[in-house]
Amino acid sequence: MSARLAPLIVSLVFLTAHQTVTSQAGGGQNGFDLVDKAGSIRKPADVRDLYRLLGTYTVELDPKGEEMHVTYASPGAAQYYRKNGKFADGTVLVKEVLGTNHGPMTTGDAHWASDTKVWFVMIKDDKNRYPNNPLWGDGWGWALFKADAPDKQVATNYKKDCLGCHLPAQSTGWVYVQGYPVLKSK
Amino acid sequence: MSARLAPLIVSLVFLTAHQTVTSQAGGGQNGFDLVDKAGSIRKPADVRDLYRLLGTYTVELDPKGEEMHVTYASPGAAQYYRKNGKFADGTVLVKEVLGTNHGPMTTGDAHWASDTKVWFVMIKDDKNRYPNNPLWGDGWGWALFKADAPDKQVATNYKKDCLGCHLPAQSTGWVYVQGYPVLKSK
Repeated sequence: MSARLAPLIVSLVFLTAHQTVTSQAGGGQNGFDLVDKAGSIRKPADVRDLYRLLGTYTVELDPKGEEMHVTYASPGAAQYYRKNGKFADGTVLVKEVLGTNHGPMTTGDAHWASDTKVWFVMIKDDKNRYPNNPLWGDGWGWALFKADAPDKQVATNYKKDCLGCHLPAQSTGWVYVQGYPVLKSK
Repeated sequence: MSARLAPLIVSLVFLTAHQTVTSQAGGGQNGFDLVDKAGSIRKPADVRDLYRLLGTYTVELDPKGEEMHVTYASPGAAQYYRKNGKFADGTVLVKEVLGTNHGPMTTGDAHWASDTKVWFVMIKDDKNRYPNNPLWGDGWGWALFKADAPDKQVATNYKKDCLGCHLPAQSTGWVYVQGYPVLKSK
């Protein structure tokens, strides 16, 4: 290899590695890769393997039963939030709702997740991209997938299907951020 | 750039990008980067941002109180486990133990994580690398860090400080895998 070209090659290699890392750590969120031209939302693949945990809620259902709500975010989402106090345009949140099992363990009565019931998906949209699609509004795209057909989006209107449960979180951008410690510190 | 060198440069760039991806997705687990020659274990940095969720336990303490135990694994750990039925040598597990808050939400009484109390760290060791260090044995390195000094490892003997709580999980490699759905499906 000529001495003149070696620095170029080295630079290219480092540049590529750098981009691979920063595309995850920076604010670049590509949630719109999951959306077609009409605003239909696909569920992202391999969320458990690729996304990061925001946090877990356990919910004691009325009259009885328990759920675990595990919320994942696209890579880099929490870093951006800590820096800017909000989610980046294109951020994807996935809330997986599971049943639970429980039993006595060495530290007390322990509860853990069992089977998945549904997934809620939200995609941050700062530009009101789909004003005529009833699954987009209030700064987000909203979607619902059920375990019996995990790739079929079944919500029809976010105001009817989604917003009711999110109303108490309106002042924090419709997201229950108090249960997500990573948004405050890494 | 000469035509002869261009393919070399392109190959180098792709090779670098490829390695960056496969080092996370494959079985290559570099937990021993956290260990010095004597077997002392450091807590990995930025676990919430970089590691993947294995699962969450909530524990009702006796006589009262509640904890949330959130276990993270080094990237690629779950993929390897699903394929091989065990954790790869060098896999890092971090169990963060947090207090909880709770309150009424739209779906029921909800519980969520508050402040961190301690972190347990385990590093898979298939080669019995530190036979004279009392924090290594039974196929793992064992470590404990407390919130008031988060970088100071404070366990002294894994048999005394760690194994008691893990005994019920002996048949599953000392890990409470039943609460970690990602080990069964992605």
